[in-house]
Amino acid sequence: MAKRKKLSGFPEWLPEEKLIEQFFIDKIRASFELYGFGPLEPRSVEPLEVLLSKGDDKEIYLLNRLNDSNKKAEFGLHFDMTVPFARFVEQNRGQLLFPYKRYQIQKAWRGERPQEGRYREFYQADIDIIAENELDISYDAELPRIILELFSKLPVPKFTLKINNRKILSGFYQALGIKDTAASLRIVDKLDKIGADKVLELLINDLGIEQKTAQQCLNLAKIKTSDSSFYEKVKAFGFSNELLNEGLAELKFVMDSLSDLENVYADLSIARGLDYYTGTVFESEMLGYERLGSICSGGRYDNLAADNKIKLPGIGISIGLTRILGPLFKEKRLEASRKTPTAVLVALVDDNSRAQANEVAKLLRQRNIASEVHHKAQNFGKQIRAAERKGIPYVWFYDPKNPDKHELKDIRTGTQLAVDLYTWELPIADSKIHVSLL
Amino acid sequence: MAKRKKLSGFPEWLPEEKLIEQFFIDKIRASFELYGFGPLEPRSVEPLEVLLSKGDDKEIYLLNRLNDSNKKAEFGLHFDMTVPFARFVEQNRGQLLFPYKRYQIQKAWRGERPQEGRYREFYQADIDIIAENELDISYDAELPRIILELFSKLPVPKFTLKINNRKILSGFYQALGIKDTAASLRIVDKLDKIGADKVLELLINDLGIEQKTAQQCLNLAKIKTSDSSFYEKVKAFGFSNELLNEGLAELKFVMDSLSDLENVYADLSIARGLDYYTGTVFESEMLGYERLGSICSGGRYDNLAADNKIKLPGIGISIGLTRILGPLFKEKRLEASRKTPTAVLVALVDDNSRAQANEVAKLLRQRNIASEVHHKAQNFGKQIRAAERKGIPYVWFYDPKNPDKHELKDIRTGTQLAVDLYTWELPIADSKIHVSLL
Repeated sequence: MAKRKKLSGFPEWLPEEKLIEQFFIDKIRASFELYGFGPLEPRSVEPLEVLLSKGDDKEIYLLNRLNDSNKKAEFGLHFDMTVPFARFVEQNRGQLLFPYKRYQIQKAWRGERPQEGRYREFYQADIDIIAENELDISYDAELPRIILELFSKLPVPKFTLKINNRKILSGFYQALGIKDTAASLRIVDKLDKIGADKVLELLINDLGIEQKTAQQCLNLAKIKTSDSSFYEKVKAFGFSNELLNEGLAELKFVMDSLSDLENVYADLSIARGLDYYTGTVFESEMLGYERLGSICSGGRYDNLAADNKIKLPGIGISIGLTRILGPLFKEKRLEASRKTPTAVLVALVDDNSRAQANEVAKLLRQRNIASEVHHKAQNFGKQIRAAERKGIPYVWFYDPKNPDKHELKDIRTGTQLAVDLYTWELPIADSKIHVSLL
Repeated sequence: MAKRKKLSGFPEWLPEEKLIEQFFIDKIRASFELYGFGPLEPRSVEPLEVLLSKGDDKEIYLLNRLNDSNKKAEFGLHFDMTVPFARFVEQNRGQLLFPYKRYQIQKAWRGERPQEGRYREFYQADIDIIAENELDISYDAELPRIILELFSKLPVPKFTLKINNRKILSGFYQALGIKDTAASLRIVDKLDKIGADKVLELLINDLGIEQKTAQQCLNLAKIKTSDSSFYEKVKAFGFSNELLNEGLAELKFVMDSLSDLENVYADLSIARGLDYYTGTVFESEMLGYERLGSICSGGRYDNLAADNKIKLPGIGISIGLTRILGPLFKEKRLEASRKTPTAVLVALVDDNSRAQANEVAKLLRQRNIASEVHHKAQNFGKQIRAAERKGIPYVWFYDPKNPDKHELKDIRTGTQLAVDLYTWELPIADSKIHVSLL
C-alpha cells in the first residue's frame, strides 16, 4: 500500500498524546458533573437549512452518499456544539426538565483553511444552562467559577478569563447617539487584533462616527480591572440609561461573586462576534499562547432555542480543547506519567509458564490493578526495558518452580522486593495517570 | 423556526439515555484499561482510496465543502474502526511500541437504509492487539475473556460468545476437495439466517458441490459445544491436514483457557464474512435479541496493517454499542438511578439567601459531592418534586437565620434529619449513577 499522507487540518494524536487528551476530557467532565451538568450528544449532522440559518459564514462540510453522489446534499456536519444543542432543545422541549443543564464534549468540523489553532476536525467541550422564562443572574457567576476552578486543576499555562456585559456597550453607544451599535461592537471587538488606531479609523470612516465619540468608545474599551472598580470608571463618563445601568449592575454582581478567585478580569473591550449574545460575555487566554485567540468563550443569550410562546434564556461557555492541546503537543509541553494504562507488567519467565503469568495478571486485575503479561519470554533485561519504554511503573516476577514466591521491581527506583500475590496493593499515587506541564 | 424532524438512522438519545450510554462507555473503557489497552482516536475521515480499498460494499459518506461542492470529494467518513486503525498503524509504525494494544470508542457512519440494529451514525467500541512478526495464541483467549468479563458487569440480557477458527473450516473444505473455500465459507456463514436447506441448495447449485460433500459441510457447521468436545466430533469425520489440525488445536486451546467462564461456545458455523480474518473468529448474541445479529464480533488477522518487510499479525474485537442500546432504549429496558449527576439539590429558601445556598453547594463540591442550587425560591413541596423528577436522592435545607442549622431530606425514604455542613459525607452507594436492566 502506498505511504499515506497526513490530512492537513485533521489532527491525529499518537497513543501517549491521546492518553493526555483523555485525561483532559475526564477532568473536564468531572468538573461539569460536580455542578450537576449531565452529558448530551446530539447527532453529528444537521439539515442544511439549520446549519445555514445560524452559520452562513462557516465552512460547512456537506455529506453525500458515494452511491448517490449526484443528489443534492440535504445535511452536513455540525460546526459547533451550540447549533445542534439549540435544535435539540427546540425539538425535545416537552421531554426536558428545566432549567436544563448539559455538557457536550464532541467533535465538530469546519472546512476552513488549516492554521495554528484552526482545525477541520476538533473537540469542543461546552456547558449550557437553559431555563424557561427567566434565568437568575447568579448563573452568570457560576459558569466562570466552574471554568476557573477547572483550569486551575488542568496542566496548562496560566489561564485568564475576561468578562464583559454587552448591555454596557450597547447602552454606552446609545448614550453616545451611535445608531448602528452592532457594527460598532464588531469593530471594537477587534481592538486586541488590530490596535487602537485602526479601531478609531474604522469607527470614523466606516460608520461615520465623530472623532470625539469614537475616542470615547475606545476609552471605554480600554477599561480592564481585576475587581469591580470598572464600575466607577464607567460611571465617570457621566452617562446613564436603563441598558447601561443594568449591564453595569450585572457585571458588578458577577465580579463581586468571583472576588475569591484569581485570573479573572472585567474587560470592557470584549464583545464576542456572534449576534445571539445579549448580556454577560466571556473570553479567555492562555499565557504565552495569546496568538491562538480565545480558548474558552461564551455568554448569555435570551432566546437561542426559539419559541413563540415561551422565552428560553440561557448561558453557555465553550472550551476549545483541540485548540489548547494542539500547540502544547507540538511543543512537547505535556507529559504523562506513563504511556499506557498498565501499572504492572508481569514478566513472562518462560514459555511453559504463560498460564501462571496470566493467573498473576488475573489476580491483580481482580483488585483493580491494570496489568498485562509481557508478550514474549525474553531475557529479563529486555522485559524491564519494555516496561521502561512504556513508563509502566512495576514489573512482577513469579517463580515457575515455587508458586508462593513473587518479587516486584519498581522501575523508577530499581528496588526489587518480595511481595504477596494475594494482598499486594498498588500505591494510590500509581493508580492513575498524571499529566504535567513542562 | 419550523418544527424539526428526526433524521432517520441518526439516533439521538434523551438526557437520561445519554447518561446510560455514558455509563456503558465508562464501564467498557475501564475493562479495556484494566488489561492495558490505551485509547486511540484516529480522525473521522479517510482518503477515498483507503475507504474503497477495504469497504467497496459499504455505503460511504463523502465530504464536500459547501463553498466548493462541485469539486470531486477526496475523503469520506470512516465506516468502522478497523480501517482507520490499520491505516494509522501503517502510517505511524516507527512511533508505536509493539505489541500495540489500543481501544477505540468512536462513532462511525454508513449511508445504509436504516432499520432495527442498522444506523447511519453509530458508536463502536473496539480493542485490537497488533504485534511484530508473531502474536501468541494466548491472546486469542485473552480477548474473549475481556469481553465476557465486561458483559457480565453490564446491565444487558444474557450474552453468549461463539468462537470458531477459520483454519478448521478451510482445512475441512480442502480435505473434501472443495476448490472455492472462501465462497463456501460465505454460504455456510448464513446458516443462522437462511437455514440448512437453503445452505445445501446454494452449495450444490451455486458452487457445484456434490450432495454428499455439501451435507458434510453442513454437518460440520452444526457442531456447537460449550467445551472442547467439538474436537472429537470433528476428528470423527476422519479428515486430517495441517490447516485443519492447526485450527482444531488453536480452538481447543482457546476453549480450554476459558473453561472457567459461562456463556461461551465453540460454534463451527461461525465464519465472519470479512476476508481478512485468518484464524480465530468471534461472534455473539444477546438473549431475546438474536434478530439484531452479532452485537460483538472479531477475530485474528495475519497482516491487516500491510507491510512488505515485516508481518504485523493482530487480533481484535468490536462491540456494536449503538446496536445494543438502540433496542433496549426503545423498549425502555434500561433505567438509571437518577437523570442527572447531581446528588444533592440545595433548596433555595428565599431570594435573599441565594449566596448562602451557593456557599452550601460549594462546600459540598469541595468534598466531591455533585450539587446544585434550585433555580427558584419556590415552596419546598415544588423544590422536592423537582428533585424527585430528576431522581436527585437528597434535598438540603439551610436556615437563613441560623447558619449552623442544616437539614437533609432523603427523597426516597422521606426521612429528614439534622446534618453538619462541614462533615456530612455522601453514602458510597449514592456517589455513582447505577443502571439496571428491567
